[in-house]
Amino acid sequence: MPEKKLHRREFMKISGGTILGAGLVAGGLMSGSKKAEASPMPDKWDEEFDVVVIGTGFAGTAAAIDAKKAGARTVVFEKMRLPGGNSTINGGLIACACSKLQEKYGIKDSPDLLLDDMVKAGLGLNDPELVRIVAEKSRDVIDWSEEVLGVEYRDEVVHLGGHSVPRSLKTREGSGAAFIRPALKKLKELGVPVRTGVMVSTYVVDEKGRVQGVRIREGYRFPNADSGTVKNVRAKKGVIVAAGGFGYDVRFRELQDPRLGADVTCTNHPGATADALIELLRLGATPIQLCWIQSGPWGNPKEKGVGIGALFNLRNFMHGLMVDPATGKRFVNELADRRIRAEAIFATGHTCLPIVDSEGVKSYAHYIDKALAKGVVKKFDTLKDIASEFNMPWSDFKAQVNRFNQFVQAREDKEFGKPIPKDDKPVETGPFYVGFAWPKVHHCMGGVQINKNAQVIDLKGKIIPGLYAAGEVTGGIHGACRLGSNAFLDCIVFGRVAGRHAAMA
Amino acid sequence: MPEKKLHRREFMKISGGTILGAGLVAGGLMSGSKKAEASPMPDKWDEEFDVVVIGTGFAGTAAAIDAKKAGARTVVFEKMRLPGGNSTINGGLIACACSKLQEKYGIKDSPDLLLDDMVKAGLGLNDPELVRIVAEKSRDVIDWSEEVLGVEYRDEVVHLGGHSVPRSLKTREGSGAAFIRPALKKLKELGVPVRTGVMVSTYVVDEKGRVQGVRIREGYRFPNADSGTVKNVRAKKGVIVAAGGFGYDVRFRELQDPRLGADVTCTNHPGATADALIELLRLGATPIQLCWIQSGPWGNPKEKGVGIGALFNLRNFMHGLMVDPATGKRFVNELADRRIRAEAIFATGHTCLPIVDSEGVKSYAHYIDKALAKGVVKKFDTLKDIASEFNMPWSDFKAQVNRFNQFVQAREDKEFGKPIPKDDKPVETGPFYVGFAWPKVHHCMGGVQINKNAQVIDLKGKIIPGLYAAGEVTGGIHGACRLGSNAFLDCIVFGRVAGRHAAMA
Repeated sequence: MPEKKLHRREFMKISGGTILGAGLVAGGLMSGSKKAEASPMPDKWDEEFDVVVIGTGFAGTAAAIDAKKAGARTVVFEKMRLPGGNSTINGGLIACACSKLQEKYGIKDSPDLLLDDMVKAGLGLNDPELVRIVAEKSRDVIDWSEEVLGVEYRDEVVHLGGHSVPRSLKTREGSGAAFIRPALKKLKELGVPVRTGVMVSTYVVDEKGRVQGVRIREGYRFPNADSGTVKNVRAKKGVIVAAGGFGYDVRFRELQDPRLGADVTCTNHPGATADALIELLRLGATPIQLCWIQSGPWGNPKEKGVGIGALFNLRNFMHGLMVDPATGKRFVNELADRRIRAEAIFATGHTCLPIVDSEGVKSYAHYIDKALAKGVVKKFDTLKDIASEFNMPWSDFKAQVNRFNQFVQAREDKEFGKPIPKDDKPVETGPFYVGFAWPKVHHCMGGVQINKNAQVIDLKGKIIPGLYAAGEVTGGIHGACRLGSNAFLDCIVFGRVAGRHAAMA
Repeated sequence: MPEKKLHRREFMKISGGTILGAGLVAGGLMSGSKKAEASPMPDKWDEEFDVVVIGTGFAGTAAAIDAKKAGARTVVFEKMRLPGGNSTINGGLIACACSKLQEKYGIKDSPDLLLDDMVKAGLGLNDPELVRIVAEKSRDVIDWSEEVLGVEYRDEVVHLGGHSVPRSLKTREGSGAAFIRPALKKLKELGVPVRTGVMVSTYVVDEKGRVQGVRIREGYRFPNADSGTVKNVRAKKGVIVAAGGFGYDVRFRELQDPRLGADVTCTNHPGATADALIELLRLGATPIQLCWIQSGPWGNPKEKGVGIGALFNLRNFMHGLMVDPATGKRFVNELADRRIRAEAIFATGHTCLPIVDSEGVKSYAHYIDKALAKGVVKKFDTLKDIASEFNMPWSDFKAQVNRFNQFVQAREDKEFGKPIPKDDKPVETGPFYVGFAWPKVHHCMGGVQINKNAQVIDLKGKIIPGLYAAGEVTGGIHGACRLGSNAFLDCIVFGRVAGRHAAMA
C-alpha cells in the first residue's frame, strides 16, 4: 500500500513543484480523493447558458419554461432518445384543491385538507415547509397549465386513495403526455433547445463550491456510460436537476429497500436510474428518506409497466370492492393510501381481485374492450361464476358482496372505512368485471434535500450555490407515501420554483 | 460569477504552472470542489499506526481488541473526555440465541428464530447477509465476552419486546459499562492507546481513493469544532469508524424524520451527533435508511436520559399491562417491537401507564426504592387508587385488569397477542406500582452501507479501500426497527469483524 500512496505526490512533484504544500496553505481545498465528485473547471467552456435543466419530465419542462420566461438563456438536456421520461407515460391525473370542477360538482375542499391528507399518508415524515408549498399551489398549477400550455382536463373529478375528497383532475387524453407535448411545443416557441441523447455525467464546481456548469456526453446512447462526446457546458445562473426517480434501478432501490429486488416489477421507463441522484450525493447533497419507495397497489401482474389493467384497478377502487381470492373477503379500505394498500396486498401473498359491476365499469368505458381482449380484465355473468373461476368460497364471497353493498347504500363502510362516493351504487348488476392486483415499484419518495427555493442543501445544512432540484429526484415532500396524482402537481410546483429562482440568481 | 470562476485557475497558475491541464490528463482526479471530502495527503505523518479506531463504545473497543490480537499496531480515538459513549450508559442487555442460560431454563431458541424476529421487526428492510451474520454470531459473542473480558451475566433470561422467546442476558451490574470497563482494561494490557478528547475531523485519502489515515484534533473539547491541535495520523491498514449514531443531533435527525424535533427528548449522551456519519457520506459512502430512527417506548418522561423509570417500564412489559389513562384500557401488545409500541403510545397523545403488582415488581427489586423516591414510579395500595389518581374510568379499568388477568391465566392474550411468560401471575396482589411511558429518541437504525467484512461501500457499489465501519454508524442491519438488546450484539459482532479484517488487510 505505501507504494500507491506515493503516486499522487510524485505526480504532483513532476507537474507542479510545491503544489501539495500550496494546497495545504489554501485550506485543504484540493482533495486527494479519487472521487471526482465534481469535474474540475475546464480551460474553456464548449457552450454557455444561464440555466441548464436536466430532464424533460413535468419538473424539467416546467422549470425551463419559467426560467426562459424570467429572461434566462436556457437549455434542456435529456439522456434518453425521446423526451418525457416517466411523465409522458404517467396516467395524467393531477391533484387540485379548489378546482373549478370541484366547485361545479359541489365538492368542498381546501389546501389545508390536501396538506392534511399528504401528511397523514406521509406518516408525518413530510418536510412541513415544502409540503405546504405544494398544497397551496395546486390551483395555480392547473390554471397555468390551461392558460399557458392549453392543457385540457376532462369534465370529472376522480377520487383517489388517501385523498379525503375527489380532487384529481384527468387530462383529456388520459396521460401525462397531454402536458409534456404542449410543454415541449412551448419550449420550441420560446427558443429553448431541448437536446435528447445528452447525459450529464458530473457537475463542474468552482473553488468556492459553486456549481458553474455540467460535463455532458453528447450523442449518449443509454445505458452505455462511455458513449457520446464529452463537453463542458456552463450554467451561469444555475443547474436544475429534474432527472426523476430511481425506481427502475434495481441495485440502488434494493440497497434502500431489500424487498424490492429484481423479482418485483416496475411501472417506470428504463431510464429511471439512480445516476443523477448519485452524482448529487457525491457532491455532498443531503439524502432524505431514500428507503421510502412506493409500490403502486393497482399494479396488474398480467402486463408490463403501468398498463391498462392498472387503470381498471384504479377506477374500480372508487366504485367496487377488492377481495383476497383465498378467503373471498375484503382485507383493506380500497381507497386507503398506496402504502397501506400495497402492504395489505403483499401480506395476502397472492394476486388480489378488484371487482366492479356493469354500473361501476362505466367510468372505465374508454378501455374495457381493450382490457378484455388483452386478458388483463375478465368478464363474468354472475358473482357465482367469479367464485368458481378463482376457487373462492362462494358463501363467504356472496356474504362479503352483500355486506359491502349494505355499506354502499348506507354510505358508510363499517368494516374498513372506505369513503363511499355519494352517488355510488351497490355491486349487483351483471355482467361483472374482475381485475388483478399485485403491487409494482412506482415512485421514489426519497431524494435530495431542497429548500423552499428548490436549492439543493448539503450535509452540513448549507445551500450548494448554483444547484437546484425538483420533482422525484428530491426527497421529503411526500414522506412515507405519495398520494396518487400528487407527483404531477409536486413536479410542476417545484419545477417552476426552481426555474424562476435560478433565472433570477 | 465569472470573476469567482477564475480564482482557482489563477491560483493554480501562480503555484503550479500547467497543473490544471495536467489534472485533466490524469482523468479528472483533481476536484475543483471546495468540498474537501477528504484531506490531502500530508507531507509527513505526525504518527503512524496500522489500524485507527474511532469510538470507544461496544464496536470500537471490540474492533481494537481484535485488531491488536491479529497483530496490528492499533490506536483508539474518542472525541469525548470520557470513553464509552452510549454503550456505557446502555442497560447491559444483550441478545443471545442458544445461550447456556436458555438451556438451563429450558428455553428453545435458534439463530434462525432470532433472524426471523429481526426481519419481522425490521419489516424486511434488513440487509439479508448482514442480519444473518449478527444472528449466527450471538453465542460466539457471549462466550468471547466471558472468556476474554470476564464479563459476568446474571442468572436470568429476559424477554424483551419483539423477541419470540426470552433470550436477552443482562450484565451483572445491569449496564453496558460492565463490558466497556474490562474492554478498556484489556486494551491497556494489550498496549493499545485509547486517547480521549481526540476528534477525527476528516479522512486522508490517497490518489487511488484509499483511506490512508485521519486528520485529528488532539485536545478537542466537545462541541467546539475549532478546539485542539490538528495532526495527521496514518492508518497503514485501515480506519474503523465506530462512532455511534446521531440520536442527539436534532438538526440531522429532524431532517430525516421531521417528527423528532427538539421537543422530543433523547436517551443518548450529548456526543451522539452526526459528525462522523456526515464525513463518511461526504467521502461517498452509501446512506442506508437514515430516516428509521427508533424511539424507545419505555421512555419515562419524568426524568432525563434513559433513567431508572425506563428500566421499570421495560421490566413491567414482561409481567404487567400498560393502559391509556384516558380510557383505562390497554392499546397494544406490551411485548410488541419498539416501533409498534412507540407508534401506539404516540397515537394516544399522552403519557401512558405501565402497571405491575407486588409479584411482578420482584424482577425490579434492585431499583424500586430509588424509583419511588425519585417519583418516576408510584405505589398504590389498590387498583381503585390508581384509577382515582389518574382520573381513569374505574369500571373500564377494573374490567380491563380482570380481562388481562384471564389472559395471563390462560397463557394467551386474545386481545393484543402479548406472549405471556410461562410462570407469569395475574396482576392482583397489592401494592401496585405504576410507571410513566412516553417514547424518547433512542437508536438510529440507518447509517452507511457495509459489506460482510465491515468495509464501507460507496454510492457506486465499490468498496472504499482502507475504510471500515461497525455499530450504530452503519445502516441496514436492523431495518425499520432494532429489537432491544440487539445493539450490544451487533456492535460486538461487526466491531470484531472490522478489527480482524482491517488487521489482515
